[in-house]
Amino acid sequence: MKLYDYYRSSAAFRVRIALNIKGLEAERESIHLRRKDQRSDAYLAVNPQGLVPTLVDDDGTVLTQSMAIIEYLDETRPDTPRLMPADAAGRARVRAISDAIACDIHPLNNLRVLRHIDEVFDADEATRNELWYKHWIDEGMGGLEGMLAGSGDTGDFCHGDTPTMADCCLVPQFYNAERFGCDMSGYPTAARINATCLALDAFQQALPEVQPDAEA
Amino acid sequence: MKLYDYYRSSAAFRVRIALNIKGLEAERESIHLRRKDQRSDAYLAVNPQGLVPTLVDDDGTVLTQSMAIIEYLDETRPDTPRLMPADAAGRARVRAISDAIACDIHPLNNLRVLRHIDEVFDADEATRNELWYKHWIDEGMGGLEGMLAGSGDTGDFCHGDTPTMADCCLVPQFYNAERFGCDMSGYPTAARINATCLALDAFQQALPEVQPDAEA
Repeated sequence: MKLYDYYRSSAAFRVRIALNIKGLEAERESIHLRRKDQRSDAYLAVNPQGLVPTLVDDDGTVLTQSMAIIEYLDETRPDTPRLMPADAAGRARVRAISDAIACDIHPLNNLRVLRHIDEVFDADEATRNELWYKHWIDEGMGGLEGMLAGSGDTGDFCHGDTPTMADCCLVPQFYNAERFGCDMSGYPTAARINATCLALDAFQQALPEVQPDAEA
Repeated sequence: MKLYDYYRSSAAFRVRIALNIKGLEAERESIHLRRKDQRSDAYLAVNPQGLVPTLVDDDGTVLTQSMAIIEYLDETRPDTPRLMPADAAGRARVRAISDAIACDIHPLNNLRVLRHIDEVFDADEATRNELWYKHWIDEGMGGLEGMLAGSGDTGDFCHGDTPTMADCCLVPQFYNAERFGCDMSGYPTAARINATCLALDAFQQALPEVQPDAEA
């Protein structure tokens, strides 16, 4: 397998966690997002969206979109630790938590969006972080905390007592929010699960700063 | 089943299409997003994110997030027309196309985000539509068109010759973009599939303007 990766991409971070939990190895190629490597003809031929991650399976199947990649790995490697529950309602809950992060929080605060805001609305960094970044973290994490705190299905992890795709999404979002200086103390269930995840090697080894392409 | 719905919500529109394709009936309750019904204590108790749609299954299972709902319906009603392919690579592709819309286009352009932009960046509607709405449609639809046009798996619909979850996501996004006056002629494959979908009753009956809560 080959993973097109970037150390600071939250979406790639999700897939790195999943690979680690499942004990799967992938050759890595770094696509430098700040240098716009993702817009090269060579990369666009692999991923027409020009986003990371992309995973190329051993049989040549090209997979894009982090959650689609994670579910694919889980379905095609069923003998490794499972990232999706065995029951339909459980899978729906794991997908809903994942989407609450990957659709409702992350897209508003990723690099390309922050750059575009600075460009078109002429926002300075402090204003943009306060009125935009933190706003969507508050809005999104508030809803997510409600989903986690209000359900008996929440365990040591987002769903039950083993990590699922939802945890693969939670930890990168938490990491990103803390990097931007957000106060996460208002989301105690999410914070508790994040800490539980970060005690595991699979999550530690997926952290941006320990990737080979990490910059100071 | 009961669907918490709003005629103009693109995410609810996706689920309405899926229910129609599968021939499933659901009682409807309209959550008026412009009047902020979604922030009532009663609704937040059902959906802590305060978003539509929510589906409550006959056994009381509460489901949120449109794509999680669609996959759940497909898994629990396998004898109705399938919205997900039978093979793992096919499912991954349908999920990736769906996420390319639901994670990378829609979240940037929905009502709450446009409202927030107007508030914090003091943007007038024309500027915001031009520099924000259309920018993300161009960016997102360009990538999506590449995914569709460049793959032999694209058929009459986004994946093969029957509608899948990807088409349930495509049509509401297309509808929304046209409502905002975007020129969609640059995305011929997506436009061709959108037209094929709209020739079907399941899509027609899910359109915002034919819902009971539609406003003039």
